[in-house]
Amino acid sequence: MIFLDAAATTPVRREVLEAMWPYLTGEFGNPSSRHSLGDAAATALAAARTASAKVLGCRPGEVIFTSGGTEADNLAVKGIALARRAADPRLDRVVISAVEHPAVEESARYLERVHGFAVDVVPVDACGRVTEEALAAVLWPGTALVSIMYANNEVGTVQPIARLAALAHAQGTPFHTDAVQAAGWLPLDTAVLGVDALSVSGHKLGAPKGNGALFVRGRTRLEPVIHGGGQERGRRSGTENVAGAVALATALTLAAASQGDRASHVAALRDDFIRAVRAGVPGAVLTGHPSERLPSVASFCFPGTSGESVLLELERLGVICSSGSACAAGSDEPSPVLRAMGIEDDIAQAAVRFSFDSTVTAAELQEAAAAVRTAVGSVQALGSTHPG
Amino acid sequence: MIFLDAAATTPVRREVLEAMWPYLTGEFGNPSSRHSLGDAAATALAAARTASAKVLGCRPGEVIFTSGGTEADNLAVKGIALARRAADPRLDRVVISAVEHPAVEESARYLERVHGFAVDVVPVDACGRVTEEALAAVLWPGTALVSIMYANNEVGTVQPIARLAALAHAQGTPFHTDAVQAAGWLPLDTAVLGVDALSVSGHKLGAPKGNGALFVRGRTRLEPVIHGGGQERGRRSGTENVAGAVALATALTLAAASQGDRASHVAALRDDFIRAVRAGVPGAVLTGHPSERLPSVASFCFPGTSGESVLLELERLGVICSSGSACAAGSDEPSPVLRAMGIEDDIAQAAVRFSFDSTVTAAELQEAAAAVRTAVGSVQALGSTHPG
Repeated sequence: MIFLDAAATTPVRREVLEAMWPYLTGEFGNPSSRHSLGDAAATALAAARTASAKVLGCRPGEVIFTSGGTEADNLAVKGIALARRAADPRLDRVVISAVEHPAVEESARYLERVHGFAVDVVPVDACGRVTEEALAAVLWPGTALVSIMYANNEVGTVQPIARLAALAHAQGTPFHTDAVQAAGWLPLDTAVLGVDALSVSGHKLGAPKGNGALFVRGRTRLEPVIHGGGQERGRRSGTENVAGAVALATALTLAAASQGDRASHVAALRDDFIRAVRAGVPGAVLTGHPSERLPSVASFCFPGTSGESVLLELERLGVICSSGSACAAGSDEPSPVLRAMGIEDDIAQAAVRFSFDSTVTAAELQEAAAAVRTAVGSVQALGSTHPG
Repeated sequence: MIFLDAAATTPVRREVLEAMWPYLTGEFGNPSSRHSLGDAAATALAAARTASAKVLGCRPGEVIFTSGGTEADNLAVKGIALARRAADPRLDRVVISAVEHPAVEESARYLERVHGFAVDVVPVDACGRVTEEALAAVLWPGTALVSIMYANNEVGTVQPIARLAALAHAQGTPFHTDAVQAAGWLPLDTAVLGVDALSVSGHKLGAPKGNGALFVRGRTRLEPVIHGGGQERGRRSGTENVAGAVALATALTLAAASQGDRASHVAALRDDFIRAVRAGVPGAVLTGHPSERLPSVASFCFPGTSGESVLLELERLGVICSSGSACAAGSDEPSPVLRAMGIEDDIAQAAVRFSFDSTVTAAELQEAAAAVRTAVGSVQALGSTHPG
């Protein structure tokens, strides 16, 4: 089996399992307990926070551990918008892009539906990019927050985050980015990016499911999403998942250590794969930006097929990939991301995403490209003899 | 070391680690992915849901996996109250008891502060019990939800949940109970209890930190706390923590299998311990209800001491316990639970909680009772020679 669905989830790295293991066994203390067992847990949690902060270029107190990327996005979008409006009732709008993950999109829609915010959606170009002009056109004095993802989960397009954040800052508006897909592939230094908040997810980079983190700059005020005992400096209550925090910190640190070289290496493999797929399937349409894209994502539409059929054929041939995102559970709608890029529904239905982790090899991708040619050919042949 | 702080957290059970292990290693699929790896994860998640539902006496679709007890409480309190008020704007009050965990208390205060709800707090008697009369006095036609914990985390007092739930239902009001401390010690059959929602936490019963569940009856409408891709039937978004769900289901199942016998056994040990402590420290005040209490909790005030000093002495003598709750992170305030029971602040400062897991032995508790006598004696002696 060749696993090309790493954007959906990744196996836990051995080093990560080893690092978290003590906190699943003997060191089981509650970090809030005031005894030696609690102290050991609190120390481990603090070390995980410091290590994560180092990768994110921030102070440890600016890292909030969460149950995943979705919770981190919820906390950023709702938390900052609600806190800002509580301080100034005129701040009753949020800006998101047209290609956000549902974690951001639905958080914004919740603010609209339940709290009366207005949501301004900044469009993307045909490559899935948000331009500075497009963002400028939807920034208002009443904008409480801008949230634009770092890299897209379906097509891999990378946004010019530093420039977009600077634009928001020019009018005093904080900027959040969902870096769930970017983490492990792109630089995460929040000082360089100039963002006020940034979300990551553990299971996309070799930590287990059920953990993530939100960076929130300095004294940015947040209304919590989960209220209770006041853990995480009152910003995220609930007994801390010590093993999960250690896992996330370890995965972030490992990914950061080799990020540049790994990204270049995998980007070159990706480009070879894209060429091979295009050579095998001349009608294949690469979706997303030709160069400003994640090293780990090659996404196509194969006109004259349905993505689902191609996936089934590919799995039969030993290649595991995805029709787009695994995140909109069980949806059969054409991808809103592809629609936002102006791709027609019948083409969007023919979308297939190949996403790699850093262990991917040239040989695997060569085999996968050959399988794509076979699979698309089979589906197209079937389509032409069994119309409808 | 004798660990008597199981109400704060428990070690992960070997069987639980074994059950979750495949989902931390080879079976790493995302349950929303439509391929064999995703299917295996979805199957495991469904099995965990079915097993949990069996313990909770409900249908699998009535179980929502969360990141812990705190999130489950937040989802119940905010989720039900907000959904009910959205359907009927007159439903703008919630009832909680005076001894709730901060996860419930702060969720209610959030509804008050941000959403304009009124919070009615039902008092407890000197044993920490909510009476039917007291609840009846705070039920209004506008009450959207009643949330009263099953068993208290500081003093172990058990509430008459079935009777209180029936009272709420008599006027059509749904009833939630925080069963985080009760789980593993008291029956969890939600049909017998007659509750509409019930929260449990994994790490209190031998699963790792970072997972929990909320039972929500039938078609009870919920506004999610975490919005996004629509997992958990749209009630809790975010990639499901498969290993965590399997761990929780395993821990719940193990606990349920022996619940009655284990509870009787530990209750007898607890009663012996209480007698031994009282014999050693004649002034010791047992807090909470004399009989309607968790088998696993013996809580005292030792007048003339501070709880913190007794804890330090006990830890020096090899006994790990707690001054009350580990859940209000880092707070030095006298316990609101003890205050609500009418205990004066200077006595409340002298609180010590001993909480057991099911592996506790008579010999350990005998040694612990002797240590209590020594520790309290030392602190009292110190107090009388060094006043202030």
